[in-house]
Amino acid sequence: MTAPLPASVAILGAGSYIGAAIARRFAQEGYAVHLGRRNGDELAPLLDEIRAAGGRATGRSLDARQPEDVTAFLEEADAAAPLDLCLFNVGGNVRFPLTATTDRVFRKVWEMGCFAGFVAAREAARIMVPRGRGSIFLTGATASLRGGSGFSAFAAAKFGLRAVAQSAARELGPQGIHVAHLVIDAGVDTRFVRDRIAAAEGPQALETLAPDRLMNPASIAETYLQLHRQPRDAWTFETELRPYAEKW
Amino acid sequence: MTAPLPASVAILGAGSYIGAAIARRFAQEGYAVHLGRRNGDELAPLLDEIRAAGGRATGRSLDARQPEDVTAFLEEADAAAPLDLCLFNVGGNVRFPLTATTDRVFRKVWEMGCFAGFVAAREAARIMVPRGRGSIFLTGATASLRGGSGFSAFAAAKFGLRAVAQSAARELGPQGIHVAHLVIDAGVDTRFVRDRIAAAEGPQALETLAPDRLMNPASIAETYLQLHRQPRDAWTFETELRPYAEKW
Amino acid sequence: MTAPLPASVAILGAGSYIGAAIARRFAQEGYAVHLGRRNGDELAPLLDEIRAAGGRATGRSLDARQPEDVTAFLEEADAAAPLDLCLFNVGGNVRFPLTATTDRVFRKVWEMGCFAGFVAAREAARIMVPRGRGSIFLTGATASLRGGSGFSAFAAAKFGLRAVAQSAARELGPQGIHVAHLVIDAGVDTRFVRDRIAAAEGPQALETLAPDRLMNPASIAETYLQLHRQPRDAWTFETELRPYAEKW
Amino acid sequence: MTAPLPASVAILGAGSYIGAAIARRFAQEGYAVHLGRRNGDELAPLLDEIRAAGGRATGRSLDARQPEDVTAFLEEADAAAPLDLCLFNVGGNVRFPLTATTDRVFRKVWEMGCFAGFVAAREAARIMVPRGRGSIFLTGATASLRGGSGFSAFAAAKFGLRAVAQSAARELGPQGIHVAHLVIDAGVDTRFVRDRIAAAEGPQALETLAPDRLMNPASIAETYLQLHRQPRDAWTFETELRPYAEKW
Repeated sequence: MTAPLPASVAILGAGSYIGAAIARRFAQEGYAVHLGRRNGDELAPLLDEIRAAGGRATGRSLDARQPEDVTAFLEEADAAAPLDLCLFNVGGNVRFPLTATTDRVFRKVWEMGCFAGFVAAREAARIMVPRGRGSIFLTGATASLRGGSGFSAFAAAKFGLRAVAQSAARELGPQGIHVAHLVIDAGVDTRFVRDRIAAAEGPQALETLAPDRLMNPASIAETYLQLHRQPRDAWTFETELRPYAEKW
Repeated sequence: MTAPLPASVAILGAGSYIGAAIARRFAQEGYAVHLGRRNGDELAPLLDEIRAAGGRATGRSLDARQPEDVTAFLEEADAAAPLDLCLFNVGGNVRFPLTATTDRVFRKVWEMGCFAGFVAAREAARIMVPRGRGSIFLTGATASLRGGSGFSAFAAAKFGLRAVAQSAARELGPQGIHVAHLVIDAGVDTRFVRDRIAAAEGPQALETLAPDRLMNPASIAETYLQLHRQPRDAWTFETELRPYAEKW
Repeated sequence: MTAPLPASVAILGAGSYIGAAIARRFAQEGYAVHLGRRNGDELAPLLDEIRAAGGRATGRSLDARQPEDVTAFLEEADAAAPLDLCLFNVGGNVRFPLTATTDRVFRKVWEMGCFAGFVAAREAARIMVPRGRGSIFLTGATASLRGGSGFSAFAAAKFGLRAVAQSAARELGPQGIHVAHLVIDAGVDTRFVRDRIAAAEGPQALETLAPDRLMNPASIAETYLQLHRQPRDAWTFETELRPYAEKW
Repeated sequence: MTAPLPASVAILGAGSYIGAAIARRFAQEGYAVHLGRRNGDELAPLLDEIRAAGGRATGRSLDARQPEDVTAFLEEADAAAPLDLCLFNVGGNVRFPLTATTDRVFRKVWEMGCFAGFVAAREAARIMVPRGRGSIFLTGATASLRGGSGFSAFAAAKFGLRAVAQSAARELGPQGIHVAHLVIDAGVDTRFVRDRIAAAEGPQALETLAPDRLMNPASIAETYLQLHRQPRDAWTFETELRPYAEKW
């Protein structure tokens, strides 16, 4: 259920694509957006763009694996305007054969993809539950539902994040907090994905790529906005997105 | 992806609650809605209401288990304006112990809940595939995902409908047709559900029912509208709805 | 929980591979097996083989879609020795594009794959529930869990059968009846599958087929025997089998 | 596929109930069992019992969260006889509201329930893959499939472990290693569970507890033995166990 504005949206993992698109979309709707990403310096162009368009945006470096930092980050958002949505979008896709997956990689991928999400959900709940309102959204991936060869670290983190989301939804829903888990079941249109396609299939693959064959970050942002606007008589916990031509 | 209007929406199972709300919502957006339900006479007040509000609505009696009738129904919609959405909303919840479930009941529940949905999807595909656009949406329930004691007939139909939806989505998606399955995982606010609550818990249970504790049919309609408007780079196949305080 | 012998096992869909292997295995353990398949004449070699090995086996033509016939079939088994296991193994895999799937095909595949299974489960329950013991096992496939392109008819039937199994398990478990659903998630080593491989990849593909690459019907039979022997403090409802090198 | 004996079985998490039952059962079949649990002193009676019955058993204190310790533990087992099965049975069920779940608890439950399982699977794979044979089994729970209110920590660990299992199964299966995940979907007959029932329902609840209402650890052991004996043409990845009268 949408808050009367002003209200704030905190985005953990405000990367250059999905997180940025979400920030733009919510700012456009009048929300004060507070953005965190590992290297906060890279937020400057996005913050400038949002402000130039008349939106309210702040941001800074954030290590989402540090609970104290997450607490402070959410409190900053809440100080600007009551926190209405905490969106966890931190990723970290890696692929290694099982026997080549080091303890360090497994642990780090989990800290970013699962532990940090748990902390964000818990800290947001602490702010929202007393008010009986607010949304906590977590971004999932194909690996949230399927452990594939080479994905033991990434899938363990994403399965774990989904468990947090599901547990939190069942616990916090009756307290008025909307927890949702959005499964991005496809490649998003990012430089990283385009480079991967070019590397795998040759540069001409990009030229012949069918239109709408990769997911537009703006479409993900729109879905999150719709989820946040759902009235509490009809909340979605889980939904998934993929392009029309995706094989699944 | 939304068609340029005029475009039509065909609703099979345009009952007094969910189907009616969907009809109102799409008519409000400018779609010509064509409504079918078992007893077409009961459509009159809804058709009057939509027309009085400036919308385009037609309707008639429809036995969705009769393939020829479904074909004709969809062609009627398509003749009014290009068919842009075929929405299958026929239900038929029953509950009997396994040994008390007759062949007739099992077969009839399947014909209404699964076979009719298959026919609707297929006939809509015949119209839509050559144009490379259009949506086919099917309404699911808790029993689409979970077989419970007493639900062998209903769950068999709903699981089967979901199989049709999933098969159709995988087959038709790359051809530009958006197939989606919406799981209504809770009681909707209808006379039937209120009567059931009163019968089970006494009439005072209705008076003390928390606000937003039952799902509003209008919320379901809104979700279907959003699904239909998704750009093809980011389609949802399956999503679910339940009230905030629902136990699941 | 295993019955004290003599006890009978009724197999609906006692084909030349899986059903036959199950029949052999249970007969070897001392069960009286009663076998039904569409063309009962084809049972002769199997019946001879089992009897020659000292087992008890009977069989006949059975149209599992005819409820009266199923009732009679189970009563015949029960008359020979108390019915301890009803095993439904009727299939009917077909693959057609959605728009090429006729009403007749969709209905027939469902009658064989889902309706017949429901009838078998219900009729077995009528015999077993008063005794508070017995097993009802149903054979699933990949399409029980996944609707794929071209599989709307087959998946609708298999999803539906799984719904029946799950509903029956939840209802009958507390009454002492063990209902289980075994998902065969791969090609079984049959003439049909070998022909399909040869047609798709050329005859040499069969020669270079890795050992154990196709599932041995005897392995499925062994799994069913283990499931039937489970003590009631630890029953399995669902399990799946696939060869070591299967891609899934 | 069973190894020619002698062969060894390493059990990580050889507690007094499930792990002990598994140790007894495999020892009885002739396997050399090597047992690890946090306090190795508590293994003495079990080791004595197995040896008195003619079995081969060794054991010691093991902190399964320490990779070097796990490596050493598996190598010890492999030195006694070729390692044929690595069974991960470490648990750690806790229940806290989300906002009362500390970082420390969330992390510790994950280290025991997920990270340790990943390490065990990886280290066992290093031994087994070059030989192209062996089994890696991991014990799951209801929370492996369902996140519930109060279970964010436990479910995140168990979902994560299942992701590891699924990834490993897809990767190692074609290399001849059988990875399986057994979901224990019910209370096992342990002092802990009995105390919990008595606390919740009063001591008389234990006296009137229906026979076979709690799962017998020996039944779990039997299932693991059957899984380990499966020929590689028909491997199970996932199966679940619950008592006949369990509500699910």
